[in-house]
This record gives sequence, C-alpha cells and structure tokens, in this order.
Amino acid sequence: MSSQAAHPALMIPGPIEFDDAVLQSMSHYSESHVGAGFVSVFGETLSMLRKLFQTTNPASQPFIINGSGTLGWDMVAANLVEPGEDVLVLSSGYFGDAFADCFVAYGAKVTIIFGAVGSRPQPNEIERALKDKKYKLITATHVDTSTGVLFDLKSLTDLVKRVSPETLIIADGVCSVACEEIAFDEWGLDGVITAGQKAIGCPTGLSISMFSGRAIDVVKNRRTEPATYFASMKRWIPIMQNYEAKKPSYFSTPSPQLIRALNTAVSQILARPLSERFQRHIEVSDKVKKAVAELGLKIVAAKPEDQAHAMTAIYLPDSVSIPEVLPKLLSKGIIFAGGLHKEIGSKYVRFGHMGPSATDPKRSDIDDALQALRDTLAECGYKP
Amino acid sequence: MSSQAAHPALMIPGPIEFDDAVLQSMSHYSESHVGAGFVSVFGETLSMLRKLFQTTNPASQPFIINGSGTLGWDMVAANLVEPGEDVLVLSSGYFGDAFADCFVAYGAKVTIIFGAVGSRPQPNEIERALKDKKYKLITATHVDTSTGVLFDLKSLTDLVKRVSPETLIIADGVCSVACEEIAFDEWGLDGVITAGQKAIGCPTGLSISMFSGRAIDVVKNRRTEPATYFASMKRWIPIMQNYEAKKPSYFSTPSPQLIRALNTAVSQILARPLSERFQRHIEVSDKVKKAVAELGLKIVAAKPEDQAHAMTAIYLPDSVSIPEVLPKLLSKGIIFAGGLHKEIGSKYVRFGHMGPSATDPKRSDIDDALQALRDTLAECGYKP
Repeated sequence: MSSQAAHPALMIPGPIEFDDAVLQSMSHYSESHVGAGFVSVFGETLSMLRKLFQTTNPASQPFIINGSGTLGWDMVAANLVEPGEDVLVLSSGYFGDAFADCFVAYGAKVTIIFGAVGSRPQPNEIERALKDKKYKLITATHVDTSTGVLFDLKSLTDLVKRVSPETLIIADGVCSVACEEIAFDEWGLDGVITAGQKAIGCPTGLSISMFSGRAIDVVKNRRTEPATYFASMKRWIPIMQNYEAKKPSYFSTPSPQLIRALNTAVSQILARPLSERFQRHIEVSDKVKKAVAELGLKIVAAKPEDQAHAMTAIYLPDSVSIPEVLPKLLSKGIIFAGGLHKEIGSKYVRFGHMGPSATDPKRSDIDDALQALRDTLAECGYKP
Repeated sequence: MSSQAAHPALMIPGPIEFDDAVLQSMSHYSESHVGAGFVSVFGETLSMLRKLFQTTNPASQPFIINGSGTLGWDMVAANLVEPGEDVLVLSSGYFGDAFADCFVAYGAKVTIIFGAVGSRPQPNEIERALKDKKYKLITATHVDTSTGVLFDLKSLTDLVKRVSPETLIIADGVCSVACEEIAFDEWGLDGVITAGQKAIGCPTGLSISMFSGRAIDVVKNRRTEPATYFASMKRWIPIMQNYEAKKPSYFSTPSPQLIRALNTAVSQILARPLSERFQRHIEVSDKVKKAVAELGLKIVAAKPEDQAHAMTAIYLPDSVSIPEVLPKLLSKGIIFAGGLHKEIGSKYVRFGHMGPSATDPKRSDIDDALQALRDTLAECGYKP
C-alpha cells in the first residue's frame, strides 16, 4: 500500500507516478552539497548511471545537473557543435522539431528530416542526407513523447557508422531511458540526454545525460568557446569527475533532495536485470495496444515497429473530443494527456505506462486506466 | 518539534535548514505539470514573488525555472546583453568574478571593478566608470556568499540613475532575497536573480528571478537572437504569464514538487510583514557579530556597513586551521562552510544564519552554533 495521500493516477507520459521511497527521499533533511554524506550519494548515483545507460567504457561521462530534459538539448547544441557547423535532426514529432530550434539558437546549420505523421524518418532518406553533406552531428528522438513514435536507434547507429563514421550520434532519450533498451557502448552512441521524471521515476528537476569519450574530446578541442555558462560541459566535467571520485567540488549548487531521490529510483531499477525491466514494459505495452485495438481505436504510431513501449498515443473516435474525455477520465481517477502535435494535436490522447505503474505488481494503474478509458468512451456514446 | 530525522544543523550560507512543512511539500504525490491543481499553485507562487521582491508594477515579470542561482546569470547575460555590448560588473568576491565570466561566455565586453578583500567597489570608482563609457548593464552582488560582503544597492541605484539612467541595473540576490531589504520598484531595479535554497528556505533546484518592464522590453527588442534555448526569456515569458493567469502552458517541464515547496516557503515568509523578517535577520546578525568580537576574531567584511545580515565570514585565529575546526564543529552537531576566495580562502569559515534557523523561535541553531564555535576554538587551544 502506498503512503501517499489518495490521488488520481498520473498516467501521462511524464511526470509519472513515483514510488513512495523516492518521494520520501525528496523530503530528506538538509545537507551540505559538499558534505561527505551527500558527496558519496551523488558519486554513487553518477556511477549507477553508467549501468543504466549500459556503458563500461571509462571514457564515458555522466552528468546530473539541475534542469530538465530541455537543458540536455542546450548541452548538446552549445558544446558539441560550433556555430556554422552542420547538424542533421531526425524528427518524429514535436520534440524533434524543438530540438532543431535549439540547435538554431546556438548557430548550427540545421537540416531536418521530418517523419510522416505517426512515423519517423526512413533509412533511405537518412542515408541520402548523410552522403550529401558531412554532418558534425546527427540526432534522433528515441521516443517522441508527442507521438509515441519509437526510433530504431540500433539501425541508425549502424547506418551512420557505415556511411559517415565521424558524425556524432546523439539520442534524445527523455522518454526512453529506463524503459527502452539503450546499449550505449555496443551501439556506439556519443550522447544520450534524458530527464528524471519519465521512466527513471524521479520527480522533475534534473537533466541527466551520458556522453562518449569521443564527444568529450570534441568538447575539449573546440576552436571557439561555447556560448553558455550554466550548460557548459567543460565547466561541469571536473565537477562530475570529482563527485564520482567522492570528492567535493563546486561550480553551481546541486540539489541534495533531487539527487537522493534519483539515487533511490535508480537503485530500485538496478536491483533487477535491465532486460527484465524492458521486457515488462513491452508486455504492458502489448496489453495496452491490444485493448486499444479491441476498442476499435487507432494508434498514432501506425506501424507496430514504430510504437514506443512506455506510452501510447491513441486517436479518439471522430465523435469524441479531448475536452469531453479528459474530465471523465479524471472523475474515474485517471489522468491522461492531450495531444501535442501541430497537425493532429486535437485528435488524440496520450497514455503513459512506465515506471512503477508498469513494474510494481502492487499497483493496478494500467488496468484501472484501460477500464476508465472503456467506461469513458461508452459514456460518450461510442461503441467499438 | 521537528519531524525530520536527527541531523547536524546546516549553518552554511545555503542550502540552509528547511522547515518541516517545506520538506513535506517536496514529497507531494505526483501531479501533471499542466493539471489544474498544480497550475494554480504555480500561478499563485509567481504572484507571491511580486510581494517578496516588493514590486506592484504589473510590467514586472517573475520567473521560476528548474536550475539554480547560476542559471539566473545565464538569463541575464544571454537575454539582456547582445554580443559586443559593454557590461560593468561590481565584484565583492568569488560570485562577482564568476558572474563576469558568465557575461564573457555570451560575448559581452566586460569591465570589472573589484572590491578590496572584504570590501566592495566604491561609489567614486563606479561613478568614474559610468562616466567613462556607456554601459548597457551594471551588476552588483547584493551579498557575496564567498565573503559576506553586503552591497548598498539603494545608493547604487541612485548613482546609476543620476549618472547613466539608460543602464540596466541587475542585482545578484542569491544570498539576499528574503533576508535583506530589496525594494524592487522603489529602488528602480531592472532585475534580481536568486535561488530557492538560501533565505527563501526551499530546497535547491530552482532559479527564481524578477525583471522590470524595461528589462523585458530590452529582451523583446533585441537586434540578434539570444544564444540560448533553455535560458531564453522570450520563450519563458508567455509560459510564466500563462501560469500566473492560471492557464496551463508548456515549454519545458517544471517541477511540481519543488514549486509546491517554494509555495510553502514563500507563504510562510509572507504570513508576517517583510520588515519584521529583515529586522529579525539584523538582530541575529548583531548577536553573531557581537559573539565573534567577544571571541577576539575578525570578520572578513571589515566595515560594519559592508556586513551581510544572513551570514558571517569569520577569520580563524592564526593558530587554528579549517581542517581542524570543521570536523570539531560537526562533532558538536554544527556544519559551517570553509572559505571561498582566491586570496584568503584557507583563512576563514562561513556561518549562515538565515531562514528558519534565524526566524523560528523553536530552533536554537544560532545559539548552538555560537557555543560550538566557542568550544571548538577552546579545544584547539585558542583563548580570546
């Protein structure tokens, strides 16, 4: 049983429902950000990220900085690319488009390949673009939270390494780290940025990322200084290395409460094999997708191989609107999110099924959400 | 009585000891960042900041963003200044110097006036500089956390308005908001940046700031786009305005837990007149300074008018070292910070006396800290 006050289940694609122990860590008594107790917890958390991202290469560098997923984009755009350099952004929704805006803000020359609505850029388009021009960096949104479209990162890294091996490969893993397989070393990724409040299961407030030794070398060997202070990787690298070596260090004050909560969340994740966790998210996803099909509804990510496993974007029946559905779901104790896509935003809802709601056998959030969806649609007069 | 586990009192100049109710808000159950409950709390918190900063001008714009005090520097440097423009930084310690580094990162032409150790730039130097060159912006660190030097902001704003009225006036209020008087409108400030974890009394993780209508106009009328995405005020302004109008809005996910904690902390502050709070910090400061004098020790901020009221940087006796003092204090349940200044860092300790430790009559933190200091020095063989 949960010790949290009774509340509707937050079934949006982040923030998610948090485990009691994680929330308890949030109210930890105040500690010095350079005191031995917190330094040890911070250092341990950084080391644990290596396991979460599946990297054993000591040159890989984890970062935990006050912020959110968005700040990770600034870290990539400000530090890994110099003004005027070419970047290729693969977009499968709102978040790919916005990442491109971020690169533009820092002066990169950006080429975007847009996936069709509910799909993602295709390998032949990507290969053509990579052969056309030499890109400093390519990015893909592993799961675009706006559409629930999953990107096949493994095929992408294979393609880039074959066609343009010098190009840095960065994944936006905000909605994929800790729910979708990411083999940082094996796939040869150069960077994965994420946030705490999705499948990792830690309250919002942290930008979490991992960069390869190759990416760190690019940061160290820039011709120009990066146009940022707070997001400067060069300033943060020694801080992260010191904390991981259990030595206090200061650039900007970290949050002991958030980092303790992250430590608790990642400890829970790593207590079981990651493969089991990914498999569990696939099983829950299959259950949700099956129930959606039985309701006669369509999923925004049309092809099964493009469907994320920790969220589902579901088209509503033509006769039913978002302003009708969300309050009815809420009255049944379930919170879904509306759509977030410039072309189809008003036509679908987003159902997040990750973290404790998917993995904690004591929770019935998924079944409750599906039942609430069925009941709501019935109340709206929809019959499958 | 506190419900927090027994722990040493954190008497450093931030993070500070937090009130039980504030820590409890940190473990609030998960909420949607665009749900009605949280939107209302966020909006109310933004409105309360107007009272905390003492501004009634509707053109003033509050910001609450995941980050820390440092991020406020980036907001100022990236948004209010364009590359090549002149900035005058008044430094009274480590944090003034670092703010200057931040401006340099964004391409500003920076002139620094350094205060002598334990002092601050003097009015005649500032006036000379302002007459010498037209500055887009001037900054002062209201209280430099590294030295405990207080800047007389009121005299500064008077001077700037007389000599160079077009120059934007920005205060770093990280260690002054909620403990030192700041009359935003009356003094004619254009921006004050701060963080939650000092006198406001909210756990680390938020960048909190207030900008004048004049500053916002500068942001809106830039010739060039700012080289930032996450710290872009132009992107955040509509979000903050929507939340304050209790309308959901999205650019980057805010932290419901941190903002609830901030709401609790600021509600507690505003429940009593601000003048009473400032007076209380003065009284506690007087008590600390008197005790330090009785111990025959010197304060880094030499002149009484340069001494901050929420922290004291205390020179140790020549015979006593920081590595000797801090563990002895800790064994008595008190945490002080070491020095943080390139020239004198190893010679002094910092004692933070702000927030609940200063204002909550149920807490004996200040007396305990003073007694621990006396006992520690005696154990080290020092006699006043």
